[in-house]
Amino acid sequence: MSIVVVGSVAFDDVTSPAGSVKGVLAGAATYFSLAASHFTKVRVVAVVGEDFGPEHEEVFRKRGVDIRGIEHAKGKTFRWGGTYGENLNEAKTDFTHLNVFEGFRPQIPREYEDSEFLFLANIQPTLQADVRRKMDGVRLTGCDTMNYWIQRTPKELAETLKLVDVLLINDTETKMLAGETNLPRAAHKVLAMGPKALVIKHGEYGATIFFREGAFGIGHHPFRAPTLPIERVEDPTGAGDSFAGGFMGYLASQAELNREVLKRALFYGGVMGSFVVEKFGPQRLLSLTRQEIDARFQVFRELTHLE
Amino acid sequence: MSIVVVGSVAFDDVTSPAGSVKGVLAGAATYFSLAASHFTKVRVVAVVGEDFGPEHEEVFRKRGVDIRGIEHAKGKTFRWGGTYGENLNEAKTDFTHLNVFEGFRPQIPREYEDSEFLFLANIQPTLQADVRRKMDGVRLTGCDTMNYWIQRTPKELAETLKLVDVLLINDTETKMLAGETNLPRAAHKVLAMGPKALVIKHGEYGATIFFREGAFGIGHHPFRAPTLPIERVEDPTGAGDSFAGGFMGYLASQAELNREVLKRALFYGGVMGSFVVEKFGPQRLLSLTRQEIDARFQVFRELTHLE
Repeated sequence: MSIVVVGSVAFDDVTSPAGSVKGVLAGAATYFSLAASHFTKVRVVAVVGEDFGPEHEEVFRKRGVDIRGIEHAKGKTFRWGGTYGENLNEAKTDFTHLNVFEGFRPQIPREYEDSEFLFLANIQPTLQADVRRKMDGVRLTGCDTMNYWIQRTPKELAETLKLVDVLLINDTETKMLAGETNLPRAAHKVLAMGPKALVIKHGEYGATIFFREGAFGIGHHPFRAPTLPIERVEDPTGAGDSFAGGFMGYLASQAELNREVLKRALFYGGVMGSFVVEKFGPQRLLSLTRQEIDARFQVFRELTHLE
Repeated sequence: MSIVVVGSVAFDDVTSPAGSVKGVLAGAATYFSLAASHFTKVRVVAVVGEDFGPEHEEVFRKRGVDIRGIEHAKGKTFRWGGTYGENLNEAKTDFTHLNVFEGFRPQIPREYEDSEFLFLANIQPTLQADVRRKMDGVRLTGCDTMNYWIQRTPKELAETLKLVDVLLINDTETKMLAGETNLPRAAHKVLAMGPKALVIKHGEYGATIFFREGAFGIGHHPFRAPTLPIERVEDPTGAGDSFAGGFMGYLASQAELNREVLKRALFYGGVMGSFVVEKFGPQRLLSLTRQEIDARFQVFRELTHLE
């Protein structure tokens, strides 16, 4: 089944202890779609500028990603620059030039309308809600957001949360959104806002999924999938978006959506996040094979499997 | 089988968002022994001052902990004061009065010499090594340390590490000790220093155990056990020491020491750490039943169990 992702396409300048790159194709929609493309058909809705050429289209095409929904606007593509220190957990932002992304009003191509899965990457919550309403027939909607929207547009975000099935955010965002420092209590407050499931991303420690009572099956236990950096980490950018791509892409590849499927999706999210950080930009997502993905799935499974 | 723990007994003043307590019985040896006492016979080696009375002895006796190795010195017991902010992950130290702990020279009572397990809580590395050499017949030695010793006494610590079987430290300490920021690579460097296994404590995210090739069985995969705060967290003090108590106590209760046993021990460590933080000081370790412990073990198992 196919999945539509709405979000940013950008060019990044990244510096980390492993080196630096300039103008690398990036953005949430890029990382998400390249990760998800290993599991299912992906369709992108985004905006780019005049500096986005055929060589960039080719990156998506190589992975079979449908880019008919990428709008070409006058001006420059979104550009971001960041530097990671030794601990690699947080980037210092060197610059953010929104450029054409500032006026982004997502348009869903007619050809995308039969998609059964939707992922709303981190954009302004009202735009997310508009897209969700237009894609009325979807079976499952995933959504990301960030502290900026939690703090500045809480009402708009609350409206969006009523329309999504799975929210994927990190620990800090969960606590901020709930106004509660205990993670499981915060999770339950967030679930009361609308989503059927909440995926809390713990960075290098994996992720936990909390379910609303009765959603996707019976039981009230949360589930944790681990992650572990295997190779050298060059560039943590895109780890969260690639996680979302692996998670949503795997879901879209399955006939049934039950808790066991969501648990395995959480593992695949961790797997894709752990691969992308091995190389600068999204390049590892391009060289990756399904065999490598499943081998790492097994490593992560053994990492937590008790006889 | 019985386990000897060598470490601090202290009185703590703790403030957290949940309230504050003064002069609560604490210290690494206290948390460790009360946690381990739920699995096996525990014997303490520590030093206290004249302010340590029969009411404090009674706390250990209630849990059947042998305190013949607690030396009574002239002066005051070690006192520590700390404050936790909203995130609860790190305490701001308000004061540290080492008092009688400053001159601590651990003496192993003759009656303790037949113990088969030893835990060296966080004290000066040369003292740890001395104790380890005196307890020559032990089957397994666990050891803790901290950034202070890693930075100030690296040579002494290196000697100690050659004498221990399992080192239990946190992420930051592992990276500092190895001089390496990638966690799995850091883990392998630490294992090359001596220990057969390294337990890296991730705080609220659980812990990962790395094995030296061939140690405790075949295979080279690390293992991760999760944790999750269930109730309200009142006081994170002693979580790491209670983790070590659950881990080592469970090991000491088992006939065989193989990888499956070490994996389950990692779960029990997480379980004991998650209980102790529910209440100020070690009080939760006193009210706890084995039934509650095993119920939470099941919760943590379900948290990561993939069909």
